[in-house]
Amino acid sequence: MAQPVNATTPPRNYGVLLYRALDFQDVFGPLEVLYGISNTHQTNLFLLAETLDPVSTQPRMAEMNPTNSSVYPTLVPTHTFADAPDLDVLIIPGGMGMRAPDDLLKAELKYITDTYPKVKYIITVCTGSALLARTGLLDRRRATTNKTSWKGVVGFGPLVKWVAPARWVVDGNIWTAAGVTAGFDIMFAFVKAMYPDGQALVDNWAKSIEYVPHEDSSWDPFSAMNGIPTQNQL
Amino acid sequence: MAQPVNATTPPRNYGVLLYRALDFQDVFGPLEVLYGISNTHQTNLFLLAETLDPVSTQPRMAEMNPTNSSVYPTLVPTHTFADAPDLDVLIIPGGMGMRAPDDLLKAELKYITDTYPKVKYIITVCTGSALLARTGLLDRRRATTNKTSWKGVVGFGPLVKWVAPARWVVDGNIWTAAGVTAGFDIMFAFVKAMYPDGQALVDNWAKSIEYVPHEDSSWDPFSAMNGIPTQNQL
Repeated sequence: MAQPVNATTPPRNYGVLLYRALDFQDVFGPLEVLYGISNTHQTNLFLLAETLDPVSTQPRMAEMNPTNSSVYPTLVPTHTFADAPDLDVLIIPGGMGMRAPDDLLKAELKYITDTYPKVKYIITVCTGSALLARTGLLDRRRATTNKTSWKGVVGFGPLVKWVAPARWVVDGNIWTAAGVTAGFDIMFAFVKAMYPDGQALVDNWAKSIEYVPHEDSSWDPFSAMNGIPTQNQL
Repeated sequence: MAQPVNATTPPRNYGVLLYRALDFQDVFGPLEVLYGISNTHQTNLFLLAETLDPVSTQPRMAEMNPTNSSVYPTLVPTHTFADAPDLDVLIIPGGMGMRAPDDLLKAELKYITDTYPKVKYIITVCTGSALLARTGLLDRRRATTNKTSWKGVVGFGPLVKWVAPARWVVDGNIWTAAGVTAGFDIMFAFVKAMYPDGQALVDNWAKSIEYVPHEDSSWDPFSAMNGIPTQNQL
């Protein structure tokens, strides 16, 4: 697999795209890894949204919350898309909100499209790859996503070479992860590839957060559980 | 192990204690599990802090952020301690902020002390058990914590029966987890014990978030990695 390595000047400025009804774990998993890295590597985090209003993780439609529950924390942007600084890495989380119609995600899709030529890397987590696919930027690239949401996501990217099984996939400067907790593994893999002391950073921080990273990008019992045939392997 | 089971009336109202410089993953790991449960079980979340001001996850002291990084999202409380509703479960996250002196955590320690008699269960994640230990409520109980932070935490609870190795420990109505990502495992174990369809909920949601839960509470390679002798096993 062509895995870009840029160990002499590791990334420093990370942005996370926030939008209505994202899955909060898709945001905080990768950030927990960056938090560990920041102990020894200067790391800037920008939480980006259309406006500075707190972003609700609650679905827009009542039928997406059939029990009328209130398990929806709000997230606080640090910058708008308009005043976002230059980024090294843009992280795109998934969640139910990625299914919203184009007009409700217009600002987000435009920001991704406009920003891609200016960033070094894009990382998607879970169904965040569907949002990226909707911009066309994944066309003819290899990518993966959450296997439980496979059918819906694949529909957003008919020209994408969707890969299964996969914990994460790297194609050029676009890194796409499988579902939710794969956000830890893709971020650890990214750190390992990008930082001069990557493996030590991973080993040390994984121990601190008491996680055993999946270091094999093809580890994925969930494709079989969801009946997804093997496809687009290299 | 005495594991309370209350499968006929599962918990519904969950509170999370927010405080300066907590570890955000300790909050969002358990919440990600509750988010899955809420699809079929009405679940209310209350994010509790001394005031309604956004809670910064940034350490108070500059020396705790040696690289001058900005990897510190803020969290938005939904209720103050004073207007918090009755809870079934109080979740206490860990993080560097739990080391602050008593006067900076006065409101939090008082809220825990006052609330314990009124909740059905307390769940701590990572070094959240140190905060609970500081109230005296863990005295003579079995409990665990993050193994990398073991020495510091144990110092806050000299009368606690600290358990190693342990992914999580249940003593009466107090559930304590090991470091950070153990927040997923303790919450899955709690759901399994508390909900009539617990095992199905766990299996289904773990598949959706592409996580393989550690279902053995004694699974813990991190105790040995940190040179912590086996202690207080049943």
